[in-house]
Amino acid sequence: MNKVYIAGIGQVPVEENWNKSLKELAGDAGLMAIEDAGIGYPDGLFVGNMMGITANRQAQFGTLMADWLGFHHKPAISVETACSSGAAAFRLALMAIASGEMETALVIGAEKMTDSPGNEITSSLATASDAELEADMGLSFVGLNALLMRRYMHEYGWKHEDFAGFSINAHANAIHNPNARFHNLIDREAFTRAPMVSDPINLLDASPVSDGAAAIILSARSISNGRKVVSVAASASATDTTSIQNRKDGLRLAAAASSAKQAYRQAGIGPKDIGLFEYHDAFSIMAALSLEAAGFCAPGEGPKLAIENKIAIDAELPVATMGGLKARGHPVGATGIYQLVEASLQLQGLAGKTQVKRTDYALVQNIGGSGSNVITHILRSE
Amino acid sequence: MNKVYIAGIGQVPVEENWNKSLKELAGDAGLMAIEDAGIGYPDGLFVGNMMGITANRQAQFGTLMADWLGFHHKPAISVETACSSGAAAFRLALMAIASGEMETALVIGAEKMTDSPGNEITSSLATASDAELEADMGLSFVGLNALLMRRYMHEYGWKHEDFAGFSINAHANAIHNPNARFHNLIDREAFTRAPMVSDPINLLDASPVSDGAAAIILSARSISNGRKVVSVAASASATDTTSIQNRKDGLRLAAAASSAKQAYRQAGIGPKDIGLFEYHDAFSIMAALSLEAAGFCAPGEGPKLAIENKIAIDAELPVATMGGLKARGHPVGATGIYQLVEASLQLQGLAGKTQVKRTDYALVQNIGGSGSNVITHILRSE
Repeated sequence: MNKVYIAGIGQVPVEENWNKSLKELAGDAGLMAIEDAGIGYPDGLFVGNMMGITANRQAQFGTLMADWLGFHHKPAISVETACSSGAAAFRLALMAIASGEMETALVIGAEKMTDSPGNEITSSLATASDAELEADMGLSFVGLNALLMRRYMHEYGWKHEDFAGFSINAHANAIHNPNARFHNLIDREAFTRAPMVSDPINLLDASPVSDGAAAIILSARSISNGRKVVSVAASASATDTTSIQNRKDGLRLAAAASSAKQAYRQAGIGPKDIGLFEYHDAFSIMAALSLEAAGFCAPGEGPKLAIENKIAIDAELPVATMGGLKARGHPVGATGIYQLVEASLQLQGLAGKTQVKRTDYALVQNIGGSGSNVITHILRSE
Repeated sequence: MNKVYIAGIGQVPVEENWNKSLKELAGDAGLMAIEDAGIGYPDGLFVGNMMGITANRQAQFGTLMADWLGFHHKPAISVETACSSGAAAFRLALMAIASGEMETALVIGAEKMTDSPGNEITSSLATASDAELEADMGLSFVGLNALLMRRYMHEYGWKHEDFAGFSINAHANAIHNPNARFHNLIDREAFTRAPMVSDPINLLDASPVSDGAAAIILSARSISNGRKVVSVAASASATDTTSIQNRKDGLRLAAAASSAKQAYRQAGIGPKDIGLFEYHDAFSIMAALSLEAAGFCAPGEGPKLAIENKIAIDAELPVATMGGLKARGHPVGATGIYQLVEASLQLQGLAGKTQVKRTDYALVQNIGGSGSNVITHILRSE
């Protein structure tokens, strides 16, 4: 594909925000990105959103945002791949630009999850699993991840407390991110004593249901605006069986491994060249599995990286540098764009107190379902 | 964009099918297209579907289909632009191929609407309107179209019976399409005496809620398989305000006009070069407005084309040649792909008893919402 550049970014704080609708959150982030890029209105709009039609009773949310933002008849679509919807929108925009169909595009990831009645969110999240083989059996999405974590602990001999480092690191980094959901440090004791959600996943293993929106302007031309130029060095997507039971090995994220491998090949680099990894730590078990799938350690060794503190900002492989899904928050369709916005800021040296040292390449991986639709991007500072 | 070709097609009968799930319908159509093209598994999957997450409680339906069809880790996404989701998926696949990211792609449009409890479908269809400005006021989607039709009749002096020709033509053509939902002829008397749905829209003004799936293999290379080669001469998308109340003129489909105009420009042709028009006759008022927006008559004159019988197979501008939304049926996310499959068969001379005479260019327009997201393609026989 032809090279595509990040020209502008926008993000609203991830929070429980009952004062703004899904449309307003997405609109705020979108306008910020348009203003940040300073190149006027882009040629098209790509929106990543998962549960607008259930939680907010709004279909064709991309169209509505084109309307709300004043796109005046320009094209707009919504894409949905569960929790990787944000990265899916980004990837479609890349292809639209690389095909020559557009010069510039706005990508918005948005989700509003906290203001819905009854069990709508738990029920909507469960639609990310296989309806016939998983959700209809009564499995919630956190329940699915609990099964994975229990099995992982059984296979590799890890204890629950061995996962503490992932969440402790995420909260430590989020402290410095004004857009993060949580601004409280946690320690090992808090982690082990947190209320149980779905055994063995407790409250501090899980990312919070949140409202949020983030946006990026992509362009076929390099636009610096006085900042370091960031380009997309790789974009790769892979799928796996939707249900965990149909996988050869439920503890390997095969789609994550495949898309990471493709991305490394596209960029001509390997895991050692990565200066930071924005991983998809929706649950601490996903943090461990993602590190393994992306080639940073062998299967079963994910927790070791946390225990040995190799994932801190000043360590070998900074992850969740602005809080990750765990502490920045996980408004599902928005998450992929928050990750890319944060990686972009890191590569530009604009990450403040959690600035990483190596700013050549960032690996950004957004996972839909329980590893069934995984999209990996590598950003590069030019 | 680089040229892209239709390499294979598949479609299942549009019906009320309680024996097959959404997944099975889409799978059947997808496998037919793969077999029809005879080039093995494509590089990626693009699925158009609107209400999988509400009516079938299945998100990331694209992923599930990649899994079900045996795509083995290849990329897949679902796109949603309400009733134009099918054409949106087709358009994204075009860009993926034109960008060089893929050589071939499978596009599936699928919807299963008839097997859901309570008022889920009426409620899901209403999400295609503006939640805050329309649906939340209690407006159903047919209600919205009824407002448009009433206003149109008031402004231009048409009577309800003046719209009869659209539905009579659709049913006459569907008789010969084994995949159509309806195989009964209707006449003017039946049309005027049909039960009222939402005044002035009666049962024979409205397309039927249906189950269905259709699929297309797209390729960067021309593949004939002994048939005429069909390529994509234009792909254009435009949006309008989601709510009708925010439009300057509610009786002009501005997005339909804009996308048609762009499509003509891309193909280097005009309305007179079009041999058939697969229009989006979800309601007879939409048939009239579509003909006007695509440049086949002046505003307010749509019904004249039906009254003067200019839309029949052997007339100047054949429309709904295999039944259209009205009589082939309107499984919303699938409709755009059925339209493209039918246009492709026409251009190849494979349309049987409803074969049109002029097979150079087909205009295919898929409308999302009440004209808010409109995608127009022009297919060409090489």
